[in-house]
Amino acid sequence: MDHLKYMKLALELAAKGAGSVNPNPMVGAVVVKDDKIIGRGYHRYYGGPHAEVYALEEAGSQTKGATIYVTLEPCSHYGKTPPCAEKIIEMGIKRCVVASLDPNPLVAGKGIQMMLDAGIEVETGILAEEADKLNRIFMKYITSKKPYLFLKCAITLDGKIATETGSSKWITNATSRERVQQLRHNLMGIMIGVNTLIADNPSLTARIEGGIDPYRIVIDPELKTPMDSKFVQATDGKSIIVTSCENSYKTSEYKEMGVRFVELEGKEFKLEDILVELGRLKIDSIMLEGGRYLISKAFKEEAIDGGEIFIAPKILGDSNAISFIDGFNIQNISDGIELKNTKFNTYGDNISVEFYNN
Amino acid sequence: MDHLKYMKLALELAAKGAGSVNPNPMVGAVVVKDDKIIGRGYHRYYGGPHAEVYALEEAGSQTKGATIYVTLEPCSHYGKTPPCAEKIIEMGIKRCVVASLDPNPLVAGKGIQMMLDAGIEVETGILAEEADKLNRIFMKYITSKKPYLFLKCAITLDGKIATETGSSKWITNATSRERVQQLRHNLMGIMIGVNTLIADNPSLTARIEGGIDPYRIVIDPELKTPMDSKFVQATDGKSIIVTSCENSYKTSEYKEMGVRFVELEGKEFKLEDILVELGRLKIDSIMLEGGRYLISKAFKEEAIDGGEIFIAPKILGDSNAISFIDGFNIQNISDGIELKNTKFNTYGDNISVEFYNN
Repeated sequence: MDHLKYMKLALELAAKGAGSVNPNPMVGAVVVKDDKIIGRGYHRYYGGPHAEVYALEEAGSQTKGATIYVTLEPCSHYGKTPPCAEKIIEMGIKRCVVASLDPNPLVAGKGIQMMLDAGIEVETGILAEEADKLNRIFMKYITSKKPYLFLKCAITLDGKIATETGSSKWITNATSRERVQQLRHNLMGIMIGVNTLIADNPSLTARIEGGIDPYRIVIDPELKTPMDSKFVQATDGKSIIVTSCENSYKTSEYKEMGVRFVELEGKEFKLEDILVELGRLKIDSIMLEGGRYLISKAFKEEAIDGGEIFIAPKILGDSNAISFIDGFNIQNISDGIELKNTKFNTYGDNISVEFYNN
Repeated sequence: MDHLKYMKLALELAAKGAGSVNPNPMVGAVVVKDDKIIGRGYHRYYGGPHAEVYALEEAGSQTKGATIYVTLEPCSHYGKTPPCAEKIIEMGIKRCVVASLDPNPLVAGKGIQMMLDAGIEVETGILAEEADKLNRIFMKYITSKKPYLFLKCAITLDGKIATETGSSKWITNATSRERVQQLRHNLMGIMIGVNTLIADNPSLTARIEGGIDPYRIVIDPELKTPMDSKFVQATDGKSIIVTSCENSYKTSEYKEMGVRFVELEGKEFKLEDILVELGRLKIDSIMLEGGRYLISKAFKEEAIDGGEIFIAPKILGDSNAISFIDGFNIQNISDGIELKNTKFNTYGDNISVEFYNN
């Protein structure tokens, strides 16, 4: 049984689409005949051809009687491209091996049925768990319409993100910071609080080769974002301010600069409400980059789906320095927040804890 | 050249003596003839035969013309055992390959010279760095007469060792805690502050098979250690209170229980002075187990030689919870404490940062 081998390859291909296909899923496909790989493909960019199309076209005239491995159920509907299930049938594929079923209600099960009706053997569930994990973002977004909220922070061993005076450059090393650039590419949005924006005036771009800059989202209930900040001055239309509708009358100057707005009632926003609005803008994933207030709020509301916390082997030892989280009142160790499904990564002399609550 | 292979084996053998030979060094030896290992040995327990003796005796009548690999320069003086250099000569060894030279002024270079004078070929410095690292404790103790101070602490991701109310059981998982028991065996002493003793009433024993309990040292300037604590009630004569000489008149009751005393001037002791006194008691290594006051003090005085900080994927998020360190006043990130020569270990869902400043 080489099912696992070929599906693993299809998953590796799928992962190459990370950050380029959102809010579509990452998908990979491999066409195999007589135990030889004759076609490979993955979904490369949002709106582009599906993985199956690349794989089938590479295989070309040899597809008759072949097996196709695909990490997500082939689509059955006419969207930006014709349905892949139809193409698989037309090209004479004999067997289709699928990892995850599509959680998209427009597609679920229909692609499988279409192929079965055409007499194709279909097997499902091969490496489904791995495939589901790979598409955590897509799975959450398609079922809840809310973006996946991914925490990123860089801390010292004593949990600090800055000194009392706000010095935070740099806690982590260059290798960790490169990984953050990759995450900014992989996730569609990046969210910070207005105080962090004022303190750091960050660019919030994905500084890697071919990196796609994220939507920049600042939570700013009082509308204090400086007009001369990099955030406002950016010209790509990807800056979004979340503010109170009480500030509506003050937004025009920002709008002239291309800044978009999400306006909410009151001034104490719930992350939940913010995520609903950002989901409407077709943002499927957001990296929460701080600071303390916003991170603490997100933990309190249990809004964090996953994250990566980078730790440097440094110690500040200063209770006036700024922790990445505060405001809880915990009496017993067992009442602390427990991160789930943790995994450790090493970046030179830094480590990170990656976790997935969902 | 199989030098590296045989010396590596000798180092592996040496490491088996960890915790049993202190304040002697760990030493391993391998005897090789015609590319075959004919003898193996390591220093097993304090006062017992040296590694070379075991290895040479296993090789027995075949030692003539053989090579001996030994991780530390063979001794030349009559101590608890006759000099190993002499035995190597007597047994007809042709070549001696040595990793570290002995830092002990009683021995340094003399063993080598004795063998050279007898016409034995001697090579030194093979894997010397690894051998020196293995014997960090011995190297520090023999040259400075002060114990190696090794920090152990168990923290949450936000650097806490307990909640505001003192709850600390358990931050880390069972696998991490097992490793701590091993460390307690490996190091000769364990040091805590009196507040930790009062709060936790710990046993401070090495709870592993064949574990050697450490000397228990409590820093107690006001002599507040409770008479009914496990520390005082222990009957092995390994409990030591470091207190002010102003409390001399109050020590007799403790002494009747077998508690030993280190008395120092004043009440604000310097770690340096404590270590000098403990070195006089032939304690070559101490694990500093907390709490916050003592750990902070040790970092301030730059007294920490190395350590292992265990981190659980938990968060308290409470600025009233107790950090493992406090009292520094750091304005710039670059002025923080940097741990040196770090290495990461994984214990299930816990990680640790092991570091060696010296």
